[in-house]
Amino acid sequence: MSSTEARRRLSALGLEPVAVDALVAHFEDAERRGKVGHGFSRIAWLESVEFDPAARPLLVESGEGFERWDGDGALGYLVLEEIVRATLVDPPERARVVAACRCFPTGVLGYWVRRLAEGGLVAVLTATSPRRLAHPDGGPGLTGTNPLAIAIPSNEGAPIVTDVSMGAVTHGAVLAGVAQPEELVPFGGEQAHKAFALAAGLELLVSALAGPEHGAVLVVARPDHDPVPAFRELAAGRRLPGDG
Amino acid sequence: MSSTEARRRLSALGLEPVAVDALVAHFEDAERRGKVGHGFSRIAWLESVEFDPAARPLLVESGEGFERWDGDGALGYLVLEEIVRATLVDPPERARVVAACRCFPTGVLGYWVRRLAEGGLVAVLTATSPRRLAHPDGGPGLTGTNPLAIAIPSNEGAPIVTDVSMGAVTHGAVLAGVAQPEELVPFGGEQAHKAFALAAGLELLVSALAGPEHGAVLVVARPDHDPVPAFRELAAGRRLPGDG
Repeated sequence: MSSTEARRRLSALGLEPVAVDALVAHFEDAERRGKVGHGFSRIAWLESVEFDPAARPLLVESGEGFERWDGDGALGYLVLEEIVRATLVDPPERARVVAACRCFPTGVLGYWVRRLAEGGLVAVLTATSPRRLAHPDGGPGLTGTNPLAIAIPSNEGAPIVTDVSMGAVTHGAVLAGVAQPEELVPFGGEQAHKAFALAAGLELLVSALAGPEHGAVLVVARPDHDPVPAFRELAAGRRLPGDG
Repeated sequence: MSSTEARRRLSALGLEPVAVDALVAHFEDAERRGKVGHGFSRIAWLESVEFDPAARPLLVESGEGFERWDGDGALGYLVLEEIVRATLVDPPERARVVAACRCFPTGVLGYWVRRLAEGGLVAVLTATSPRRLAHPDGGPGLTGTNPLAIAIPSNEGAPIVTDVSMGAVTHGAVLAGVAQPEELVPFGGEQAHKAFALAAGLELLVSALAGPEHGAVLVVARPDHDPVPAFRELAAGRRLPGDG
């Protein structure tokens, strides 16, 4: 799909131009990075679900070290877009925890933290999604794939951006038919209990701060040090997380 | 080793009774939970390294949403002990990020976050250690095993405490001869790149906030919700992270 076509179809859903721009920028970035399950293919999905195209997230609690937002019916992408923009305009003096209630879907978490790092902030983001990962001993889905994304800015070149889902495959890959539903388990094979534990911890962290509906938790802080150049040097040219 | 013996040997290193108590409590808890590599076996290790038994961590920056501590030569255990105590005495109104510079060794991270959760706080803690995990493509150690621990308090019973090291085995297991040094790689087998990415992100997060020496980063927040009872119900009796 071309960006023009994407823009046309999103506009037809009733989204304002600024929202269309935000969504297209996210989908384009996902396509560029090969995360096609989070790219333009999501537009057909958006066309299949009910949502209020005019909804906007609300900043319901605001302090220097803590903010709480409520998606209030807006697409999760647009909730995170607004949080990222607001954080870049008014970054914390030192650090801030941001809870985003009713924030789904959230797309590629690395996309949001990268932008914060490009603005000079250290950023850590996690988000919940439908409970698709079961306990390693079996049973129903207990957690989402609950990615954890971490971005570290650098004075010398691009930030390092990690973005790790706790699933062995993505739900998008299952939807696209390139993975089977039974492959959607915590990653790690024999040590899948570790990825499950991470998914459970992140699930409960988000739920404790952002409530029972899918949400997100972001931590942003100003760095005191720039560890990226020495880390890249030690890696001696090996590809690091988030490198293009 | 008995606790009496542990206490005697730690006292002989010149540690004050309050420090001895803190260390023994940590080692006992590690033993109880089967993390023997972090238990009494560490006393022989402490006897083999140089440290200042009278050193105390310093709170070098203090705000509602951010604190920075400097271990200042104190054992990492005692740095975290002091941070946990100070946080329980003066918890944040909403949330706080705590950077701990020069904070090593840190022991079982789950131990510290559990205590914060027993005091009603959501807590997330990570810490760096010697660079023992290499890039999946090879080369030198780039990151520590960099565990991530998350504890969620509950009004109904024990908190849920996850504590996941990014290594397939622990350094303690290698020291104890129950694992080979070449097994100390990111966990996940074919998907070890995921655990490596997590270890790298956490490594750089700590380095960006706490500097080049081993350190720790803690996030504490007051919960708005108690997701634990519903999660336990959904798990239908399956063992959850941190359960005894």
